Amino acid sequence: MSHTAELIAVGTELLLGNIANTNAQTLSQALSALGIDVFWHTVVGDNPRRLAQAVDIARRRADILITTGGLGPTYDDLTKQTVCAAFGKPLELHPDILEEIRVFYESALHVPMPENNAQQAMLPEGCTVFDNPVGTAPGCAFSAGGVHVLMLPGPPHEMETMLRRCAVPYLRSLSREVIVSRDIMTFGMGESSVDALLHEKMARMENPTLATYAKPAEVRLRATAKAAGQAEAEAMLSPVVEQVCALLGDIVYGVDVKGLEETCFRLLKERGWTLATAESCTGGLVAQRLTALAGASAVYRGGVVSYWTDVKASVLGVPRETLDACGAVSEECARAMARGARRITGADIAVSVTGTAGPDPDERGTPVGIVFIGLDTPTGTFCRRVDAGRRRRDRIQSLAANHALDVVRRYLTGLPVA
Amino acid sequence: MSHTAELIAVGTELLLGNIANTNAQTLSQALSALGIDVFWHTVVGDNPRRLAQAVDIARRRADILITTGGLGPTYDDLTKQTVCAAFGKPLELHPDILEEIRVFYESALHVPMPENNAQQAMLPEGCTVFDNPVGTAPGCAFSAGGVHVLMLPGPPHEMETMLRRCAVPYLRSLSREVIVSRDIMTFGMGESSVDALLHEKMARMENPTLATYAKPAEVRLRATAKAAGQAEAEAMLSPVVEQVCALLGDIVYGVDVKGLEETCFRLLKERGWTLATAESCTGGLVAQRLTALAGASAVYRGGVVSYWTDVKASVLGVPRETLDACGAVSEECARAMARGARRITGADIAVSVTGTAGPDPDERGTPVGIVFIGLDTPTGTFCRRVDAGRRRRDRIQSLAANHALDVVRRYLTGLPVA
Repeated sequence: MSHTAELIAVGTELLLGNIANTNAQTLSQALSALGIDVFWHTVVGDNPRRLAQAVDIARRRADILITTGGLGPTYDDLTKQTVCAAFGKPLELHPDILEEIRVFYESALHVPMPENNAQQAMLPEGCTVFDNPVGTAPGCAFSAGGVHVLMLPGPPHEMETMLRRCAVPYLRSLSREVIVSRDIMTFGMGESSVDALLHEKMARMENPTLATYAKPAEVRLRATAKAAGQAEAEAMLSPVVEQVCALLGDIVYGVDVKGLEETCFRLLKERGWTLATAESCTGGLVAQRLTALAGASAVYRGGVVSYWTDVKASVLGVPRETLDACGAVSEECARAMARGARRITGADIAVSVTGTAGPDPDERGTPVGIVFIGLDTPTGTFCRRVDAGRRRRDRIQSLAANHALDVVRRYLTGLPVA
Repeated sequence: MSHTAELIAVGTELLLGNIANTNAQTLSQALSALGIDVFWHTVVGDNPRRLAQAVDIARRRADILITTGGLGPTYDDLTKQTVCAAFGKPLELHPDILEEIRVFYESALHVPMPENNAQQAMLPEGCTVFDNPVGTAPGCAFSAGGVHVLMLPGPPHEMETMLRRCAVPYLRSLSREVIVSRDIMTFGMGESSVDALLHEKMARMENPTLATYAKPAEVRLRATAKAAGQAEAEAMLSPVVEQVCALLGDIVYGVDVKGLEETCFRLLKERGWTLATAESCTGGLVAQRLTALAGASAVYRGGVVSYWTDVKASVLGVPRETLDACGAVSEECARAMARGARRITGADIAVSVTGTAGPDPDERGTPVGIVFIGLDTPTGTFCRRVDAGRRRRDRIQSLAANHALDVVRRYLTGLPVA
């Protein structure tokens, strides 16, 4: 049988915007991987009346109800009392848990247990107890009135630990289906164009499904299959992924990779090549994205952030005549920057970025959004001109960094780069 | 009169856990600052039946209803149709908006408008239109049946821009109270220590209130006053801000600034000085944060990402003997990197970062989390050693970048840097 879950997060700090509800994201990913549909997330404050109302609504539209938060020792931690009252479950004292909490305080924290912690040892009658190895508030699960109720703690690291160790095994025992997803990553086409290409296909699909998620100039397509087993789900996905990749062509830069930098990293590693960067308007963003990957030093030597024109000349060796004649935002300068970065670092290839990130045009009047990407390689120097339009500064920088990585990706896969 | 708001986020990607509902956090902060209570957050997928149900529930318990998401051009963007149907509001075409979208595509993005974008120009009859200067989907607001309905786009940067420019002024006009906040930014002390210093003061305060928000090694203190007018609220805040700054001393790096880079930018600009960077384990992050600021070229000349040891020697001129004797993660190397960056760029001061970001120790066995910050200045070379501990790679990189900026900040304000 197929299950539907609703997540209820309890905590006034969420309603005040002090923290984001990342627990809902973590739980949703875990439930999706278990083949359990999540149709609702609800957030309420530390208020028993509204929590009771949320539980009342949720139990009518879901058969798995997962709460996060409100299990602690303070006066506003009311989740257990409220949820148990809604399901007519009495709370009972677990002396062994009380003892564990006392020991945790005395041996790990070296202080006596504050008395208000005793309420954490009160749990629903006949429940499954979820241990909390990284905190004091245990979680629990019980079934009542055809609904499975799980109560997990609010602090994300406690919730994640309990989810992995206790809640996932508990939920897996309820379900028979698996859900598997593949992410097809594209760069170079807007969401509405990708959508237009795939619209007919997407509208017709029910299992697997296909959905698009867009960032500027980057579109992720997620294909998701539901089946009785992992192998069956994967077999359903393969032809869909193949067809979508064939329809979209070389804008697809990878399947199940996190970003263009990961594809570049893999391609460089396969060849045993190293890369260098020379950045002006992106100010180090390309380097930062590459070095965010663990093990980046296998493929990335380093680079120069040549923000001032003088630095382009003195460190990268861009000829003064080029800078005088063409300006810093020019094809010629981009090419010379890439050549300079490759020469001074000894990398196999080097990519450069120079452009106008705004908010104002450069001193020669180059409009905001004009960017040149240079690439110097053993087989020649290349350049791509990008018009990012009058976007916000950070968007232009991010788009320009993506173009730089895309130029590297296309060169290494034998595609034209410009 | 006092208002109650409910937030409804629309998007299957939220229910699948692909993204966290950060819009709810941003909106909650803004509403809290306006003195509007938020009692519920709800998340539904791209499903008109469940969205209609969510609206039906929400309008019975809140008098301000704010949706995010589902305003885009694709077939699953159904928020306007569904919400308008629930309130009996017809949609009507706004030819001027259609024209704006067409112009945005043609003049800013330099491509023709895909036809499915036309549905973004369909808006509720008689609504207030919220312009979207950073995307194509406009938002809107209308009142019906005693409820104020606001529809905002899903992509966070579009939502935030529209919130600031349109939704906040709209909501402010519904209320009679003014809420004003000041953010006191600190670096160098953990949240619990800051909390301990201010605890007595915070517990006693009701208006203005004082709240702490923590990121690793950075604590933001927000003082918030509620009053009948702006001037009155500001007069209430000034002594609180003064007292808190006095209590915390030189860990305060600014009031109402976005980050350490902004403080560095201002201090450099005041002196008419320029800065250069030399980065190893942060891989360009310090440069990227500085160049994310509009007008960065007034104070930032450029830098080197010397990821490989060879690049430290060949580009920055770190002596081979230093590298052989002390290793790349050392005080000596950090100092030499800073000197090299200052020399080759001609900047007034230069800051360097070298360390072990992990996940593994370096080839000399330096533990993960050890970082050296170098600073070369007209009055000498300085160094700060940081032990960031066995944190995650991105945390170490971010903390190291903060330390580098903090060293610059402290030097420029005449404080000891180490």
